[in-house]
Amino acid sequence: MIHLLKQTMNTYTIGIDIGGTSSVIGLVDSEGKIIHRSVVMTQEFETPEVFFAVLADIIQQFPETKNAIMQLKGIGIGAPNGNFHKGTIEFAPNLKWKGIIHVVNILQKHFPELKILLTNDANAAAMGEMIFGNAQGIKDFIMITLGTGVGSGIVCDGKLIYGHDGFAGEIGHTTYDPHGRLCGCGRNGCLETYASAGGILKTAIELLEQTDIKSSLRQFPVCGLTSKHIGEAAQQHDELACEVFDRTARILAIKLADSVAHTSPSDIFIFGGVANAGDVLLIPLKKYFEEQLLQIYKNKVNIRFSGLPSNDAAILGAAALLNQQ
Amino acid sequence: MIHLLKQTMNTYTIGIDIGGTSSVIGLVDSEGKIIHRSVVMTQEFETPEVFFAVLADIIQQFPETKNAIMQLKGIGIGAPNGNFHKGTIEFAPNLKWKGIIHVVNILQKHFPELKILLTNDANAAAMGEMIFGNAQGIKDFIMITLGTGVGSGIVCDGKLIYGHDGFAGEIGHTTYDPHGRLCGCGRNGCLETYASAGGILKTAIELLEQTDIKSSLRQFPVCGLTSKHIGEAAQQHDELACEVFDRTARILAIKLADSVAHTSPSDIFIFGGVANAGDVLLIPLKKYFEEQLLQIYKNKVNIRFSGLPSNDAAILGAAALLNQQ
Repeated sequence: MIHLLKQTMNTYTIGIDIGGTSSVIGLVDSEGKIIHRSVVMTQEFETPEVFFAVLADIIQQFPETKNAIMQLKGIGIGAPNGNFHKGTIEFAPNLKWKGIIHVVNILQKHFPELKILLTNDANAAAMGEMIFGNAQGIKDFIMITLGTGVGSGIVCDGKLIYGHDGFAGEIGHTTYDPHGRLCGCGRNGCLETYASAGGILKTAIELLEQTDIKSSLRQFPVCGLTSKHIGEAAQQHDELACEVFDRTARILAIKLADSVAHTSPSDIFIFGGVANAGDVLLIPLKKYFEEQLLQIYKNKVNIRFSGLPSNDAAILGAAALLNQQ
Repeated sequence: MIHLLKQTMNTYTIGIDIGGTSSVIGLVDSEGKIIHRSVVMTQEFETPEVFFAVLADIIQQFPETKNAIMQLKGIGIGAPNGNFHKGTIEFAPNLKWKGIIHVVNILQKHFPELKILLTNDANAAAMGEMIFGNAQGIKDFIMITLGTGVGSGIVCDGKLIYGHDGFAGEIGHTTYDPHGRLCGCGRNGCLETYASAGGILKTAIELLEQTDIKSSLRQFPVCGLTSKHIGEAAQQHDELACEVFDRTARILAIKLADSVAHTSPSDIFIFGGVANAGDVLLIPLKKYFEEQLLQIYKNKVNIRFSGLPSNDAAILGAAALLNQQ
């Protein structure tokens, strides 16, 4: 009887991470353990309706979904340009499906009794950090994801900030230099153009072309160079690669100090491919960040890496949406 | 009997606005009407203990305080560098009293049974706007005060953002130009150095000294020029004064677009002495702001002036603190 009671107390959540190339669906238990995982090639589906019908089928095939004693808490979805308030993906540049896609409505038809929530991928990562990662118990923090783009999720007093339209938390598109690099968003000098993987690559190419600094990176043809190469070279103390991360860290520090002046978090978590560079990014970032902070914030804000396992973060974040207040 | 019941339902709040030169105490009714008002010269008091003893005495002299049927909701205080969490004023540059002043503790001794809340003056202004001004019913907005300094209060989902340490909302100290004007905070290029009264004055002096643009402002000796003169000249279509507001508006627009990318408000309210310039500020501000916004925020954010009467705003804001959730 006690055993049965324990079983009935189990709750699971479905986490879905929608990406331009592939999407991942996971069944996540209440401890943040991924019990099942499936991958679907997003780009192979001409319409979102067919895509989500396939996802629904996969979810229904999970053994736990069929288990009468299981309590499925709901479905959480992280997606590029995801809108929490409306349950939509809106004009996502990397998706085949254009315009506004009413994701929650489409999926709800397959699961009329389940709670289904959607937000953008960086907000989902912030929720994942709060529920399953290093932000457990922390009420005021910012999650910043440095990858192909630069995204962010802002948590104040334990709640994710969505804003009046569901699109809050786009620190990647705050302006570092109004006359700076052209951003994919059409504006100039966004943080993303400096602190994303592509931004780091651009800084490296500029230094390779404009300076004579010796560098192991000169062995690569420019078109074959990646931010991963630059991170690895910096970890080997390559002078030019270290200079790339120093410049990146300084710009990121200025913009994160601006973010602190908005919401005064106790912690900033860094996540994503660029964060894998580790201390070559974090050490100069901490130094410049303290220099940039307004006096009242100095020595109060802890910048550190995410505690989410990078392969599972997106699913955990999506699943964590169901845990929010 | 009905009349008596109506009287007993009346609630009043004490609002205190602490300034470096003078402080104002008001008794505010539930409609935002100021019933009594007293001014005390802050700078004449050597210690905060004596100052607050005098304030307590004034509060006790208000006829309504003595009235048995009156319900005094509490005391709200707006102060420079006020900390909501700790009830302190911390290192306020314009106050005679240095270090950390435990304002709420000091005043609580005089009113042990009253709820006493304190925050910084810009946060108080945001609360005032929400309870008594143009932000009634609006859940996501930013209040920006352009005066001697540039302050801000950020409201998300109906709640003022305080941050983990009570010091959130310092948009005036976000960085426009890391190599720009030296700010009173010791850093360079803060928004405050461009969009405050002093910042506008500096821009005007630069234009007067570095250009030959004809201007009615040239009749003033530089040391006698004020931001009010510049505002009045711009309202008279003075070319140089208009250029000052155009440059100020452009910088303010860039930084406010950054703020939108953080919390995605539906409205931004502008308040303070500089805002009195009116359309010569607001028209170029709206133009540059729309240009600067990330696509997803365009045509969604309403920039407008505060609805608080400028003489009463500080007291109303302080009193409104007692109305927060």
